Amino acid sequence: MLVIAGPASTELGNRVASLLGVDVVDVFHKVFPDGETYVRIEGNVDGETVAIVQTLAPPQDTNLLQLLLLADAAKDLGARRVIAVVPYLAYARQDKRFLPGEAISINTVIKLIEAAGVDRLITVNIHELDILERFKIQAENLSAMKLLAQHFLEKGLKGAFALAPDQGALIHAKEADEVLGGGHGWIHKERDRITGEIRVSVEESFDVSGRDVLIIDDIISTGGTVAAAARIAREQGARRVYAACAHPLLVGNARQRISEAGCLEIVGTDCIPCPEAVVSVAPIIAEALKNEL
Amino acid sequence: MLVIAGPASTELGNRVASLLGVDVVDVFHKVFPDGETYVRIEGNVDGETVAIVQTLAPPQDTNLLQLLLLADAAKDLGARRVIAVVPYLAYARQDKRFLPGEAISINTVIKLIEAAGVDRLITVNIHELDILERFKIQAENLSAMKLLAQHFLEKGLKGAFALAPDQGALIHAKEADEVLGGGHGWIHKERDRITGEIRVSVEESFDVSGRDVLIIDDIISTGGTVAAAARIAREQGARRVYAACAHPLLVGNARQRISEAGCLEIVGTDCIPCPEAVVSVAPIIAEALKNEL
Repeated sequence: MLVIAGPASTELGNRVASLLGVDVVDVFHKVFPDGETYVRIEGNVDGETVAIVQTLAPPQDTNLLQLLLLADAAKDLGARRVIAVVPYLAYARQDKRFLPGEAISINTVIKLIEAAGVDRLITVNIHELDILERFKIQAENLSAMKLLAQHFLEKGLKGAFALAPDQGALIHAKEADEVLGGGHGWIHKERDRITGEIRVSVEESFDVSGRDVLIIDDIISTGGTVAAAARIAREQGARRVYAACAHPLLVGNARQRISEAGCLEIVGTDCIPCPEAVVSVAPIIAEALKNEL
Repeated sequence: MLVIAGPASTELGNRVASLLGVDVVDVFHKVFPDGETYVRIEGNVDGETVAIVQTLAPPQDTNLLQLLLLADAAKDLGARRVIAVVPYLAYARQDKRFLPGEAISINTVIKLIEAAGVDRLITVNIHELDILERFKIQAENLSAMKLLAQHFLEKGLKGAFALAPDQGALIHAKEADEVLGGGHGWIHKERDRITGEIRVSVEESFDVSGRDVLIIDDIISTGGTVAAAARIAREQGARRVYAACAHPLLVGNARQRISEAGCLEIVGTDCIPCPEAVVSVAPIIAEALKNEL
């Protein structure tokens, strides 16, 4: 097996290859003056199984096209099998028709990935697990939650309360709880699909008074959900409040919102390269790829 | 038939529908704070033949994804037949492997368009005609060259010399000549694939001394090719020099380069919405769509 380190995940691709002890095939990429994307695979992939590591962080559309160009080119250059490792699968939040006439964007993205010749997809903390069933090819989800909790355990947060900022994140809080051992709970969140406004309330009684709290979610985008959860935790008397996620998109003033809500630190993974990406998902990706060796 | 006026070609879509006397289905589109594209078809397409008019002008990748989302959504919403009208087909210049390992980008784009459920593709002045043969679906090319020449005829340029700035553009100069009636010729151009440097020379003897010259090409991107042609025409004693193209990308300082080379005006079409897009390709698109009524 060879690892193609896509332009959006060069460091992660190199880490994965290093853990597996396989060679990395570099990608030369550029943008033409008119804005067209260009990629070139700088190594021989003929007859090989190749794992293309390319996240769909912003700019999503260009990163997606790079992934599709690389997969199609690898197959065209003779690759036997192409595995797309897409740590952050963009467009997964548009997974149903919320309003009449809407594109179900993730369904289209799935078709495009398949059309580009990908044989197997690996992603990390996909927004909804049932999306995996829409792939015709083999598709699997890995979770970074234990890696994130481990990071906080090493920082001395043993026994911290794992708080899901909404019901969808409960699965993540449970996983973090298995590592931190301080219990878990969730907050009720309602988002108005038209205005985008979020209403938050404590759905289940939980006592975080005087305790450390780790808010845990798959994605932090504008930060509204996490900031609201941090505020509630602080109101309920939490001692130190932290936030962790697999995909720290952190758009606009998300960092400021979360900080102002009383959260001491945001920790993410290299699914989204950014200053907060201090936990690497390379170990779980390498593990998932072992059966290709 | 209904026309879906894509976000990148709203005006052109409306013009085409008006010429055909069919209804336009509007598209609501937005970009989420994190950069994801969103589209919604605001009308009933169930059981209909729909022509989606969406050019791939910059930003190419987002406009391509919008096209793919719209086509897939239209089919998912029950459209019987989807025709993609893509006035400017981006990535057509990367139509072969110039260096080892390169993605042949247009081949991937073709696969994506087909995977999104498009049944027929219509484009305008595709960079290489043989690309059409790579489509499994019905694919056809229209030419805007006579419309452009007609524009200059109406401006009083009857008898102007139609000048192709390279051999590939000779086909366009011939078409313009059929309207202007002043003869045609071409200039030898060599582009260094590594440095991008262009070397230009007069390949065939032609006499433009004291005559009006219309430089005509499919695309004007950075303007280097057209500027070089304008300079040669001026050196050979041309009276007035104009430039026309289907796709006025005009990136960077293209306008300035062309102007400084002695070209009085650049005229393009609404394949690429911009100030130079004074000629509309709506009539030839409407004509091509008539057999769908």
